[in-house]
Amino acid sequence: MDVAIIGGTGYGAVELLRFLHNHPHVNVKKVISHSNSGTDLADVYPHLTEVADIQMSALEVDTLAEEVELVFFATPSNVSKNVIPSLVEKGVRCIDLSGDFRLRNGDKYQEYYGEEIAPWQYIDKAIYGLSEINKESIKEASILANPGCYPTATALGLIPAIEQGLIDSQSIIIDAKTGVSGAGRGLSLNFHFSEMTENFRAYQVGVHKHIPEIEQTLSELSHENIQVIFTPHVVPMTRGIMSTIYADMSDEYQTKQLLDIYHSYYKDHPFVRVRPEGVIPATKEVYGSNYCDIGLYADERTGKLIIVSVIDNLVKGASGQAIQNMNIMYGWDEKTGLDQLPIFP
Amino acid sequence: MDVAIIGGTGYGAVELLRFLHNHPHVNVKKVISHSNSGTDLADVYPHLTEVADIQMSALEVDTLAEEVELVFFATPSNVSKNVIPSLVEKGVRCIDLSGDFRLRNGDKYQEYYGEEIAPWQYIDKAIYGLSEINKESIKEASILANPGCYPTATALGLIPAIEQGLIDSQSIIIDAKTGVSGAGRGLSLNFHFSEMTENFRAYQVGVHKHIPEIEQTLSELSHENIQVIFTPHVVPMTRGIMSTIYADMSDEYQTKQLLDIYHSYYKDHPFVRVRPEGVIPATKEVYGSNYCDIGLYADERTGKLIIVSVIDNLVKGASGQAIQNMNIMYGWDEKTGLDQLPIFP
Amino acid sequence: MDVAIIGGTGYGAVELLRFLHNHPHVNVKKVISHSNSGTDLADVYPHLTEVADIQMSALEVDTLAEEVELVFFATPSNVSKNVIPSLVEKGVRCIDLSGDFRLRNGDKYQEYYGEEIAPWQYIDKAIYGLSEINKESIKEASILANPGCYPTATALGLIPAIEQGLIDSQSIIIDAKTGVSGAGRGLSLNFHFSEMTENFRAYQVGVHKHIPEIEQTLSELSHENIQVIFTPHVVPMTRGIMSTIYADMSDEYQTKQLLDIYHSYYKDHPFVRVRPEGVIPATKEVYGSNYCDIGLYADERTGKLIIVSVIDNLVKGASGQAIQNMNIMYGWDEKTGLDQLPIFP
Amino acid sequence: MDVAIIGGTGYGAVELLRFLHNHPHVNVKKVISHSNSGTDLADVYPHLTEVADIQMSALEVDTLAEEVELVFFATPSNVSKNVIPSLVEKGVRCIDLSGDFRLRNGDKYQEYYGEEIAPWQYIDKAIYGLSEINKESIKEASILANPGCYPTATALGLIPAIEQGLIDSQSIIIDAKTGVSGAGRGLSLNFHFSEMTENFRAYQVGVHKHIPEIEQTLSELSHENIQVIFTPHVVPMTRGIMSTIYADMSDEYQTKQLLDIYHSYYKDHPFVRVRPEGVIPATKEVYGSNYCDIGLYADERTGKLIIVSVIDNLVKGASGQAIQNMNIMYGWDEKTGLDQLPIFP
Repeated sequence: MDVAIIGGTGYGAVELLRFLHNHPHVNVKKVISHSNSGTDLADVYPHLTEVADIQMSALEVDTLAEEVELVFFATPSNVSKNVIPSLVEKGVRCIDLSGDFRLRNGDKYQEYYGEEIAPWQYIDKAIYGLSEINKESIKEASILANPGCYPTATALGLIPAIEQGLIDSQSIIIDAKTGVSGAGRGLSLNFHFSEMTENFRAYQVGVHKHIPEIEQTLSELSHENIQVIFTPHVVPMTRGIMSTIYADMSDEYQTKQLLDIYHSYYKDHPFVRVRPEGVIPATKEVYGSNYCDIGLYADERTGKLIIVSVIDNLVKGASGQAIQNMNIMYGWDEKTGLDQLPIFP
Repeated sequence: MDVAIIGGTGYGAVELLRFLHNHPHVNVKKVISHSNSGTDLADVYPHLTEVADIQMSALEVDTLAEEVELVFFATPSNVSKNVIPSLVEKGVRCIDLSGDFRLRNGDKYQEYYGEEIAPWQYIDKAIYGLSEINKESIKEASILANPGCYPTATALGLIPAIEQGLIDSQSIIIDAKTGVSGAGRGLSLNFHFSEMTENFRAYQVGVHKHIPEIEQTLSELSHENIQVIFTPHVVPMTRGIMSTIYADMSDEYQTKQLLDIYHSYYKDHPFVRVRPEGVIPATKEVYGSNYCDIGLYADERTGKLIIVSVIDNLVKGASGQAIQNMNIMYGWDEKTGLDQLPIFP
Repeated sequence: MDVAIIGGTGYGAVELLRFLHNHPHVNVKKVISHSNSGTDLADVYPHLTEVADIQMSALEVDTLAEEVELVFFATPSNVSKNVIPSLVEKGVRCIDLSGDFRLRNGDKYQEYYGEEIAPWQYIDKAIYGLSEINKESIKEASILANPGCYPTATALGLIPAIEQGLIDSQSIIIDAKTGVSGAGRGLSLNFHFSEMTENFRAYQVGVHKHIPEIEQTLSELSHENIQVIFTPHVVPMTRGIMSTIYADMSDEYQTKQLLDIYHSYYKDHPFVRVRPEGVIPATKEVYGSNYCDIGLYADERTGKLIIVSVIDNLVKGASGQAIQNMNIMYGWDEKTGLDQLPIFP
Repeated sequence: MDVAIIGGTGYGAVELLRFLHNHPHVNVKKVISHSNSGTDLADVYPHLTEVADIQMSALEVDTLAEEVELVFFATPSNVSKNVIPSLVEKGVRCIDLSGDFRLRNGDKYQEYYGEEIAPWQYIDKAIYGLSEINKESIKEASILANPGCYPTATALGLIPAIEQGLIDSQSIIIDAKTGVSGAGRGLSLNFHFSEMTENFRAYQVGVHKHIPEIEQTLSELSHENIQVIFTPHVVPMTRGIMSTIYADMSDEYQTKQLLDIYHSYYKDHPFVRVRPEGVIPATKEVYGSNYCDIGLYADERTGKLIIVSVIDNLVKGASGQAIQNMNIMYGWDEKTGLDQLPIFP
């Protein structure tokens, strides 16, 4: 199957290329870049020398629709909403790694993304691609809104607790930490090596655009209006997200009981690994892989549940989950092309 | 004034040496090390070559009491409680960087430190050295219990809010992050470079020994029994602590109002810097210095106050505050020997 | 085909497991560890949770010879030389990632490895597995001495120049830099995170045990007795080796000419990538992959050739090349199981 | 004494501020920035909040000459050569951290700096400020050309060997490594955290502008025309330079003999520390300080001398040496304001 990737100079695109290189059913026919059309990929990413011998091209919707069956958008916000509609009308399925089709509330989109939301008929079509939760609807998706990195780690950590009523869903606090690659390849003083190394920062406190996405996902699942506190921080490392989540337990649970429920909840999901009692996962234990690892601690002293959920932000938090969703959309084994162990150390 | 440092091979000791090198009133007469008695400091710490030309010696309480007026303990837990009593009886003042004299509850000490607490007459004498808060009692201290690193960052961040009744003191959640030097110089697979770099971990979830210390400090201030949730994490960097603190606001405050209260609270304290609205401090901005920098965000949407407090764990979180306390004990300007800018980048 | 890995707690072993996980012809039947026999792999390497569900066992040569066809030794020095002979006698092929069978000079072995060399009949059998150079002899190897990390990067960088007489082979200086994982998982103050991060060190200046290995390889190729200067350094990063090599050019070459020779030399070798003029490879461009990337600069001003050769020390410098050699030994495509792109960023 | 700093947003300026903060004889009256005139320093460098309460201003030569006695230039190349002449004519002494006044060869300046050299009457006045070597001429300098970071580490490592005839001065190869801060605060993809961390790179191979500076210094000392091979690399850390230097020994020396000569050469120079036999300094051992630490290894096997010289590139390699030179110019103790221990860990 021929596919295209739009956003060829970003980290999302190179991670797609890395996994698709080992995917037996997919051929990357085009890599499209607005800013680097005409340039060889290896000039922009020397690690691809001799192995991804592709010249980037400009976007032409009509020819693209004839050449490929599926398009991945690894673009900044407010790009895909202007392109996906016409591709979908021509029968091309689209997987969007950006946030354009995730929210179903126009005001929130305007508030957090600064523009008007995509036309409603396409928002209505869009399926939110949290693979472990929405598998059935993903199968039929023509527009797949691939979840954000923080929302993926956070939702996978919280969903069993919310669905089973283990916590007071109005008491959720999420203290999240990401590696620097989450900020992409765009230059910024904050991510200049000398200023970022040996440094730890909170950022966008109270105003991060993943807040409405997390709230929407949790609210839809629980059929109540959930508000969360969410504070992102950046860690001096390239990859990895940890969400440390706090919530009041609805009863006097012990860690072991809760782990059993989580184990059972995720037993058919190969990319979620619930750790045994006393073990809290670290980000490096999922480095480069599509796993989401979860640890729990029921603090009986204070009645709080502490959930720790880790992913590689560029894999399960972006390109890996996108491929997992593609696999589901085409009826292939979920793990196709993604069955790689974490790189350690 | 002649002083001694006990615990000469630890990071606490070398930071004391760094600042005392520039202290006009103090001469480090002895560096005592159980494991390295007879060894030159520069053999263990080559960066001290030619500048701290001291041979480490073994501990002999009687001669020590004659040679120095003050002793710093930069020792592991459960060491100083066996030595300080006899030194104090001989008229030597002691500043203890370990946790032995911080808690005033024998059961908690037993639970978190695994041994019996020091004899009560010495616990009663001990002054908790949070310099900005206990200045008056510190002046007279013969046993100075220097606060832990997390408790320092956390208490300085919370105290104005608690004292002024700005938050519900039963709603406090502390998500804390430290650089690796907080774990000291002892070898451990967790802190082996290849396993710690490009990694982020939570540890001792729910059981860290700074929990009772934080609770005691806040409870004494507020005259209520405060319980906190406290989760420490370790960041792939050497120095720096950030406490991200969440609490319910007791009224509908705006960030600006709260910052004014904090500014006014700390206006006479040169080592606490409250940042302007919209600015959250990062750990590197206090690197190598004795500052504690604080930022606030009043989340009007959810009614939560988010407090971010950063220190260098080895300075304001240990050796720097110890020297600040010594300055107070001897009536010198608080900043003597400590008036150095953060190293940046 | 069933294989075993001896040395189950080291980084060599986990990298073998990572690549063999995707190898279509190989099943890892046993992971043998002296120190962790009876322990689950995932207890020692949590990143392997649920994906490498193996309990480590102790070494029993007789049963091992019945269970597997091939054994990988990822052991410290002076272990495999005591085990490989009996396995080989029972018809088991052995790939040794340690240095025991690399040198063909007993005195040098004694000098650099501190023990007597393996029995001569086995040394004579051993094939030095620099895959790109010794392909024909590797096919028949029963004992495969997998090259060291520095010798791999260095020899691949130098061989075309030596074979084609482009340099004075008595003028070679190698300034080499490695990531910390090259030192393995054993604890040491030098590799304690707080002492290794933000630090750069030379070590074992003039006495590193890869010196005789490099000299033997180059001398055998050139049929002269080559001596090299070799200085290793350690970089605050996990993975990657760079050899920066200096030698006098034998004539007035230009960079372009030399690159053409190198390109042609390596044209049938998929894992060596010679970079275009003006491009010097960086270590991260081969991260996690089996590539060796080479850049050249002919300094016409001084008559020196500067060769920069980079590999991932744990892959092409150890486990990756071991699997490449296994593929050659069994007549499979060299890239089987190894065809993965570098992880970037 | 009132001084000014030009180039207020660079790392050179902030390091000057850090040390001058503790200098008893100097007051920083003005910080001048072309791009940030009118801005508070603390807005650009939040770590200076409350401690360097200065608003940056634009350059006005006439008023500046009335307000200060001395000006530090921490500017990019080709700036100071247009300003220093008029300041000097008005009697202001200038210390130039840039390269504008270092070279005494107009062609070389044009070749490596891309513009015409400063007017000859000012080049003739300029004193090259390698403090340990040129102390007498520095005293009278009106234009002080502060050495480059690589040339400082390299020259201090080589000078005793060259002056005493210990090496063949035509055989010098310098393999140098720097922390990232050497590249300054300007944004570049190469120094974007995600691309620089866990990476090691050579750069500007054969063409770095410190080559003519090193050659000029060594040639002037030896009264011969010395050519060197110099290859710079960048290490994923903020601070630190190591020069690993190779040269043919002129006789059969042993390490100990050479160390004695070096010790004796530097015995009156407090900022150069020659390490004992068997000890090679690491960059972190001079972190944040003005030391240059040197280790030697005489490789009797090959007749090569290996010299390892380390500095903090921002201190002895820039701002620290600038202040050391100021101290010499004004007859103050060389260590004034600089007597700080390295920060470790």
